[in-house]
Amino acid sequence: MRTIFMLLMLCSVLTPMTAQQQPAVNLMPMPANLQMGTGRLVIDPSFSIGISGDSDPRLQRAVQRFLNDLRAQTGMLPLDMKVTEPSKAVLAIRTARANKDVLELGEDESYSLEVSSTGAKLDAPTTLGALHGLQTFLQLVATTSDGFVVPEVSIQDKPRFPWRGLLIDVGRHFIPMEVLKRNIDGMAAVKLNVLHWHLSENQGFRVESKKFPKLHEMGSDGLFYTQDEIRDLIAYARERGIRVMPEFDMPGHSTSWFVGYPELASAPGPYQIERKWGVFDPAMDPTQERTYKFLDDFLGEMAGQFPDRYFHIGGDEVNGKQWDANPKIQEFKRSHGIKNNEELQAYFNKRVQEIVSKHGKTMVGWDEILRPELPKNIVVQSWRGQESLAAAAKQGYRGLLSNGYYVDLMWSAERHYSFDPLGGAGANLSPEEKKRVLGGEACMWGEYVSPENIDSRIWPRTAAIAERLWSPQEVRDVNSMYQRMEKVGRRLDWLGLTHNSGYWPMLRRVAGSDDISALRALADVVEPVKDYNRGDQAAVEPTSADPLNRVVDAARPESMTARKFADQVDKLLSGSADAETKAQMKSQLMLWRDNQTKLQPLADQSFLLKEVVPISQDLSSLGSAGLRAMEYLDSGQHAPTDWTTEQLGLVEQAKKPKSQVLLMIAPSIQRLIQASAGQATGSSSNQGNR
Amino acid sequence: MRTIFMLLMLCSVLTPMTAQQQPAVNLMPMPANLQMGTGRLVIDPSFSIGISGDSDPRLQRAVQRFLNDLRAQTGMLPLDMKVTEPSKAVLAIRTARANKDVLELGEDESYSLEVSSTGAKLDAPTTLGALHGLQTFLQLVATTSDGFVVPEVSIQDKPRFPWRGLLIDVGRHFIPMEVLKRNIDGMAAVKLNVLHWHLSENQGFRVESKKFPKLHEMGSDGLFYTQDEIRDLIAYARERGIRVMPEFDMPGHSTSWFVGYPELASAPGPYQIERKWGVFDPAMDPTQERTYKFLDDFLGEMAGQFPDRYFHIGGDEVNGKQWDANPKIQEFKRSHGIKNNEELQAYFNKRVQEIVSKHGKTMVGWDEILRPELPKNIVVQSWRGQESLAAAAKQGYRGLLSNGYYVDLMWSAERHYSFDPLGGAGANLSPEEKKRVLGGEACMWGEYVSPENIDSRIWPRTAAIAERLWSPQEVRDVNSMYQRMEKVGRRLDWLGLTHNSGYWPMLRRVAGSDDISALRALADVVEPVKDYNRGDQAAVEPTSADPLNRVVDAARPESMTARKFADQVDKLLSGSADAETKAQMKSQLMLWRDNQTKLQPLADQSFLLKEVVPISQDLSSLGSAGLRAMEYLDSGQHAPTDWTTEQLGLVEQAKKPKSQVLLMIAPSIQRLIQASAGQATGSSSNQGNR
Repeated sequence: MRTIFMLLMLCSVLTPMTAQQQPAVNLMPMPANLQMGTGRLVIDPSFSIGISGDSDPRLQRAVQRFLNDLRAQTGMLPLDMKVTEPSKAVLAIRTARANKDVLELGEDESYSLEVSSTGAKLDAPTTLGALHGLQTFLQLVATTSDGFVVPEVSIQDKPRFPWRGLLIDVGRHFIPMEVLKRNIDGMAAVKLNVLHWHLSENQGFRVESKKFPKLHEMGSDGLFYTQDEIRDLIAYARERGIRVMPEFDMPGHSTSWFVGYPELASAPGPYQIERKWGVFDPAMDPTQERTYKFLDDFLGEMAGQFPDRYFHIGGDEVNGKQWDANPKIQEFKRSHGIKNNEELQAYFNKRVQEIVSKHGKTMVGWDEILRPELPKNIVVQSWRGQESLAAAAKQGYRGLLSNGYYVDLMWSAERHYSFDPLGGAGANLSPEEKKRVLGGEACMWGEYVSPENIDSRIWPRTAAIAERLWSPQEVRDVNSMYQRMEKVGRRLDWLGLTHNSGYWPMLRRVAGSDDISALRALADVVEPVKDYNRGDQAAVEPTSADPLNRVVDAARPESMTARKFADQVDKLLSGSADAETKAQMKSQLMLWRDNQTKLQPLADQSFLLKEVVPISQDLSSLGSAGLRAMEYLDSGQHAPTDWTTEQLGLVEQAKKPKSQVLLMIAPSIQRLIQASAGQATGSSSNQGNR
Repeated sequence: MRTIFMLLMLCSVLTPMTAQQQPAVNLMPMPANLQMGTGRLVIDPSFSIGISGDSDPRLQRAVQRFLNDLRAQTGMLPLDMKVTEPSKAVLAIRTARANKDVLELGEDESYSLEVSSTGAKLDAPTTLGALHGLQTFLQLVATTSDGFVVPEVSIQDKPRFPWRGLLIDVGRHFIPMEVLKRNIDGMAAVKLNVLHWHLSENQGFRVESKKFPKLHEMGSDGLFYTQDEIRDLIAYARERGIRVMPEFDMPGHSTSWFVGYPELASAPGPYQIERKWGVFDPAMDPTQERTYKFLDDFLGEMAGQFPDRYFHIGGDEVNGKQWDANPKIQEFKRSHGIKNNEELQAYFNKRVQEIVSKHGKTMVGWDEILRPELPKNIVVQSWRGQESLAAAAKQGYRGLLSNGYYVDLMWSAERHYSFDPLGGAGANLSPEEKKRVLGGEACMWGEYVSPENIDSRIWPRTAAIAERLWSPQEVRDVNSMYQRMEKVGRRLDWLGLTHNSGYWPMLRRVAGSDDISALRALADVVEPVKDYNRGDQAAVEPTSADPLNRVVDAARPESMTARKFADQVDKLLSGSADAETKAQMKSQLMLWRDNQTKLQPLADQSFLLKEVVPISQDLSSLGSAGLRAMEYLDSGQHAPTDWTTEQLGLVEQAKKPKSQVLLMIAPSIQRLIQASAGQATGSSSNQGNR
């Protein structure tokens, strides 16, 4: 088989293609090297797969999952595609060795995949590489007039960064096991390799502790993971090539610990589980030895639960108020020559680092932990930015970028995609310093996510971040990224992720009806408010008990309809719109104009829909204004000044957040109006604040 | 609480309502007695539930599931609604006693539910009744302008028949545990109470046997349930008030047994798992004692696995060919005075019945087992019809109706709904004989179902069958049934059933694209061919390895779009269509007329779409014809004879099945054309062959 395969490869015509050219192949992340041929391999029920080289049982199980995924994608049945002898297999896999049982940072994840019209060959030094190659193969399967096919390709691939993570905050809202598992499947599909499990917060302590049972019994509302479940999840992730790093945030973000163990805190209790969001006063008392005794016992127990080498202790956002108010702590600072709370926290971190190290782990923490007192083997995770990350690297510390990758802030994929761990100050690092930048992590903070909508906050935008962390730095064509992200987002549907499918039941609930066409037209062009505005702009302070069933909870973080319309406006204003584009735009604007009339009767029946009527009215106004502006543009006459002023006033109104959503077509309508009046139109909304 | 509640009940105005009046309340099945008030109970995060009376742990767990379901429906979070003291609870439940651990046929399943604006009260003699009442409460939750509410009602409810089942055939295609579980959730939601698990077929033996391991090892392609899984599923069903009756079909339908144990068969082996569909020759040898020794051991093992009192031995469709061809069997018949194969099978059944009885079970079998040799305690399941069922009842046998309830035949809900276990010959039975008719079972036979589309074959039509088996016989308003079935179908979405959500990914796979609007317009008006035509009309004989990924596999068994259009045609032809209806019809016809132009470019790219292009062309033709016919009708002029003849010819073409789907708007277009020509239009398609 191998000889024939090589021969065929020689005969076929492969087109070299650099990463920048971004060929029209639905892969995300883009491989490091890709050449495309003209032939194709048909995938039908006779498809078979064979393994040679190392016989890692983990790879065998991965092949079974691959076949299941391929069956799901194609609709073929278990009786069809099979594992067979490598020499007879359509897809032949060869690996040199298994990875260690506990996955390590920096393992070889490379693979090569050669597909011709007669067969495919996946080679990888380790099982991890083979897992990635199988995901690439799955993404290549396409529907054609002749059946399912994989195009002829030659791929040599490896990651740019060894640490490609997703943080999931389960402290603020508990996220059940099955939701985590399907997200692990999604991570594997886009070649992420670290689940950063943020397990404790002011609002909840989510892990069963046998040594300190009051942690989960009193700090979780009964919503926690048993140690069996933790083992299960770690094994599940490991099977998919994903490390699991736990985070127990300290000394701040720790109110839930104090419900059961108030003696750990810097002020007397009793404490209750926090129900609001933000930074709160409670912090561990860093001056008493019993705090360290407790942490030694607790972290010892958790070190046994979480086999990964890396262990995250948080360390962010201590406001110091409890410390300032406690005379004993003040006295401690004086007697130990500690000048301020930053130094006090550095003292705490050093003590914790020694405990973490004693239990065989390497400490990871947020920016704030970075102090010269700490040894160089710790890892700093930067929420502050590339500057902070580069500064750490210069000082000899390894680091991870998360600034720019907070998916809870509801930014566009484009904006996340533009952040590079070696961008900004990182670009000027020496090669040695650059190596200390291990990669990055998308962060799914949990204030406004439930099991129902968390997938839609993570996906598909996290696929763009995954590409940033895997693919060559030169891969940065935004249009190509969006095209491929949409495809990969659809593929994730087959894994059971609900970022697409969950939209419809949420809209039906909001409408209180199956008739959701008017609501959908509106919801398709709104986005939740950005950054921390949802909390900041709330009329009533939000709490963890608020139902997450509103339009803002259903709306997608990024409106593809608004993005597409903005592209059409670009075309129109640059004179490159054809008649069909213009007709589509007008039809779209009419739909928006008339939508409020359809929505109102439904809104009269549903309290959840009622709150978005003002936005629906804005949408109607903007639809009318856009249509009129296009008529002026068609006629070649400038729009009258009065009309323009009035309409631009409406646009400003429509740009204001209402019911915590933003109407994303407002900037495009603004440009149409401005252009119709002969004014400068400013930049496309696609390059603006999105 | 109770006193206040009674007082409030006295003050509120309740409107008595008989079952025939079918009030506009979204309940399915309809309760035996229902009175509606004018007030309503608001369901918000302060909602709580309390239990008094018997403290059955099964009820406690059911209440937790109820809260989860209510949270899913409303989008509230686990921190909200709680279990509390009965005196403080918004919904107070009282039960007199728990049911036996193993559920019994004929248990009291009644309940009463009283809802006022200040609280609700659910009373039931047993836990089973309380489970049903909780499902009723969930169905009553509605969205209004003031929040989620339950309307003021007074319900006294109990089932008409004690046996309300769903058969799922896992022999022909294996159906995984999680799919069975979500269907059990669906069954509980519509108050079905028996899962009839059809576990062995020519195409697969699906149960692990420790005594005869070659049954599952050689007869299942590796697709079987372990004994642990069986215990798990039975426990899962029991928690939801559902009995699980196993079926091991014998002496026919048993090829898969013979792969490992050819000595059981009536002809020498070797045998292979059957890959085709139909009735096959292999049958157990009823003349050799080792057959009964084997069955005694095997049924003894299975009697221990399946705690239900009832045990189904199949007994259907033996063609007798192996028996006729075996000289030893012929000799046995002669020597025992057995005149024909029916008598031989009766001999076999009697022997098997003795074994089943010895192991503490009551035997159930299909029509064919009914012979005077068998004792009166067996139960006969009728696939032949009401005549057969009534005949059994007259002879003193208990029976179940399944004729009319085969959901694999792709009939309309209306047609299933019209079958009554006590209809036809059953109507003339004496009261005592009528009691022997225990109820019925919907049957999901598995030739053309996969884990992906089985939900869409079962739901929502099975809800109509569930209503027939639960509600008073007078509940038979078809329009009301359809309205409520659509609502209950949507509610089942929240339980994870995929009959609605699974449509879209299947259409995207067929299209090979996310752009499915043209395919959807077509798929929405087709249905799979009816009865056994899929196999009978196939160009190539179908097998169990065929991918089930075609339009026929995605298409819903009943086109609601075609049904709605037929209703509009009825209105139009009876002169009761208003201007809006007419406009909608024209817009719909134009969409159909123009759809093929949109679909063709997609069809050029996808082999799965290509096969329905001829139907798409028919749809265009019918759209044009319908539009023209409406123009003639508008004009008051008769359509010309030539045109009418030509168009009716097109309709006849369009009525023919193509690619195993039917274009369901053809009869409606036919009526439009006939009416436009001044011809008699025949009956509405809604009352026709659907």
